[in-house]
Amino acid sequence: MSWNRVAVVGAGLIHMGELFDQSYEQMARGAFDAAVDSVDHGFDPTAIDAVFVATQRGTLWGQEGIGGNTIPSAIGLAGVACTRVENACPTGSDAFRVGCMAVASGVHDVVLVIGVEKMRDKSSDEGLLARAAAGHPVYTRGESAPVLFAPFATRHMHEFGTTREMLASVAVKNHHNGVLDPYAHFRNEVTIEQVLAAPPVCSPLHLLDCCPQTDGAAAIIITAPERAADFTDRPVFVAGFGVATDHPYLHEKSTYVGLPATVEASRRAYEMAGISPADVDVAEVHDCFTITEILDIEDLGFVEKGRGGVASLEGETVLDGRIPVNPSGGLLAKGHPIGATGIAQLTECWWQLRGQADERQVAIRNGFALQHNVGGRGSGVSVVNILTTNAS
Amino acid sequence: MSWNRVAVVGAGLIHMGELFDQSYEQMARGAFDAAVDSVDHGFDPTAIDAVFVATQRGTLWGQEGIGGNTIPSAIGLAGVACTRVENACPTGSDAFRVGCMAVASGVHDVVLVIGVEKMRDKSSDEGLLARAAAGHPVYTRGESAPVLFAPFATRHMHEFGTTREMLASVAVKNHHNGVLDPYAHFRNEVTIEQVLAAPPVCSPLHLLDCCPQTDGAAAIIITAPERAADFTDRPVFVAGFGVATDHPYLHEKSTYVGLPATVEASRRAYEMAGISPADVDVAEVHDCFTITEILDIEDLGFVEKGRGGVASLEGETVLDGRIPVNPSGGLLAKGHPIGATGIAQLTECWWQLRGQADERQVAIRNGFALQHNVGGRGSGVSVVNILTTNAS
Repeated sequence: MSWNRVAVVGAGLIHMGELFDQSYEQMARGAFDAAVDSVDHGFDPTAIDAVFVATQRGTLWGQEGIGGNTIPSAIGLAGVACTRVENACPTGSDAFRVGCMAVASGVHDVVLVIGVEKMRDKSSDEGLLARAAAGHPVYTRGESAPVLFAPFATRHMHEFGTTREMLASVAVKNHHNGVLDPYAHFRNEVTIEQVLAAPPVCSPLHLLDCCPQTDGAAAIIITAPERAADFTDRPVFVAGFGVATDHPYLHEKSTYVGLPATVEASRRAYEMAGISPADVDVAEVHDCFTITEILDIEDLGFVEKGRGGVASLEGETVLDGRIPVNPSGGLLAKGHPIGATGIAQLTECWWQLRGQADERQVAIRNGFALQHNVGGRGSGVSVVNILTTNAS
Repeated sequence: MSWNRVAVVGAGLIHMGELFDQSYEQMARGAFDAAVDSVDHGFDPTAIDAVFVATQRGTLWGQEGIGGNTIPSAIGLAGVACTRVENACPTGSDAFRVGCMAVASGVHDVVLVIGVEKMRDKSSDEGLLARAAAGHPVYTRGESAPVLFAPFATRHMHEFGTTREMLASVAVKNHHNGVLDPYAHFRNEVTIEQVLAAPPVCSPLHLLDCCPQTDGAAAIIITAPERAADFTDRPVFVAGFGVATDHPYLHEKSTYVGLPATVEASRRAYEMAGISPADVDVAEVHDCFTITEILDIEDLGFVEKGRGGVASLEGETVLDGRIPVNPSGGLLAKGHPIGATGIAQLTECWWQLRGQADERQVAIRNGFALQHNVGGRGSGVSVVNILTTNAS
């Protein structure tokens, strides 16, 4: 497969949180302005010739009928090509991949990928998942997100001796990182004891094992590598990416101690990038629950299968650890505005690779950062993107 | 812009209609099987390395939470990369464009683009648009689709003397074509008198001026031109495409006698294809209402602005007319299963260019077929794809 590395020349986000004071379009505008302002040599937005909008829960908030096409007008670019990409929790990650392919195809020159999600402005008294699953013959059986992930925790504990303390260590680390991230939803430390004592949600997951529901937006500007110098002297490049699906239903899973879609998506991304897990300096991964990060670091190849809990408890994934994971605070502390999540993670990777992560900055040795989401009734699809400081 | 013409090597659909007897996944499977069976030299589905799913109204029918990722499993391809593309009524058209860029980027080799939509299996007693617009500050003001298009008919009548008879001639033609299309939802002739006498919906649009709500699915298989010979000796190529947005709200429109997004999308597509409207042999266009087809044929450059009604009444767009439009029966007769619509239109173009349209076959002179959708609160986004028998 030929791959002329696409360049990331701008990225930015808004402060994540409960943004009742901002409309969907205002959130998008904030992220767009942040991305534009981040371009080193300045940026004329009319250079953008295609927009990819990442929004997952469109209908729920009254956005489904429009395909993201209120966004161009809201950011002053009415007329521009605009497409909504949706892929469950990896919606933002996959919109980024689609934007990269649009550039690499030669069809588009400068592409904006923008993720926006309203998670808190519910439009009715129906629950979030209840509404998303309404009418489906299999989903409407009480499957909430904790219900979809808890069995993996239980089985991981059974097979590998993983403990609730090990799960809790993920929340402690990510909340600590969130304190250092000015964009995080939650900016408070938590202790192992607090995580253990939090109210149960779906055993063995308690409240602080679960990410919050967060409003947010993030945006990235990409272009062909030969155009990058127009915008910056420090571009970051897209080394590779991979997407993989799995059987969507819980009763069809081949294992409860790993997510095969993540294994396969990362295998494809590593192959495209020509690297191995050991080359990755920093990773932003999908920690919708503490157990998910433990599965992720195993499935992405950072630690051996079964060692994820121990590795977390022993500090291998902290900011100055062997493989720093979720320096931004992750979904647990930074938040999970679904369509925006992947793009916010990529923005963190961009900052880390450019040495702009302030107090959260990790050591960049090989020049590779990995971003990962998994979702779709828990683990039906996984997306991995790999960014690099290396042009080829 | 460089563009190595992507090849279409398979296409198929299921009979459109009220498909209460088929699940979403069964409909997808039917379209997939039809596309696979259409490949001249036979086709091993495991050759597919990426799927793009076109579904617009995901949440409404309980499909939103999954990003199309029940589809790979349902068609026997669990594991494959799969992404949902959504872009209002042009959802299917735009998923096709995204799939083409995935191939042209060199990242993917053989791509399935599959559109599926359940329009009739409503999951609650809420109306379709009511639910899609729930909670939005501007949409929830009684805007249904007829309300969004009727003002264009009124203004077109005022400025150009367009009559209800002229509008009706579009319905008469498309119903006639639908009789000849075994996949059409409605397969009955209608007369001008019947269209005029149909119950009013939103003046001047009456019932037979409006397309039905239809369940359906369609699928297309594309690959790089250098791979096409593995699959067929008669490939069809993608000459070009274009997407354009407009200000989404009715009160922001710059005109009520045309859809600027269609003008701009087609300009981009013609430029990419290196052709002019006169080179198009046959077109499948967005006739959600009779007035829409009249606007389309003007905005696409087939007839002068203002002459759309007269041209329709005088038969310029019938099967053996100067520029045959909607040989499949169009949205008015074939139906409008949103995510599937564009892909079904492209399938008709593929058949027409390959001389496989049986009684609906039009004369192919230059080897170009154009496919068009417009949507997003009426006219917020337009997509045009141009297929050709010419490899370069």
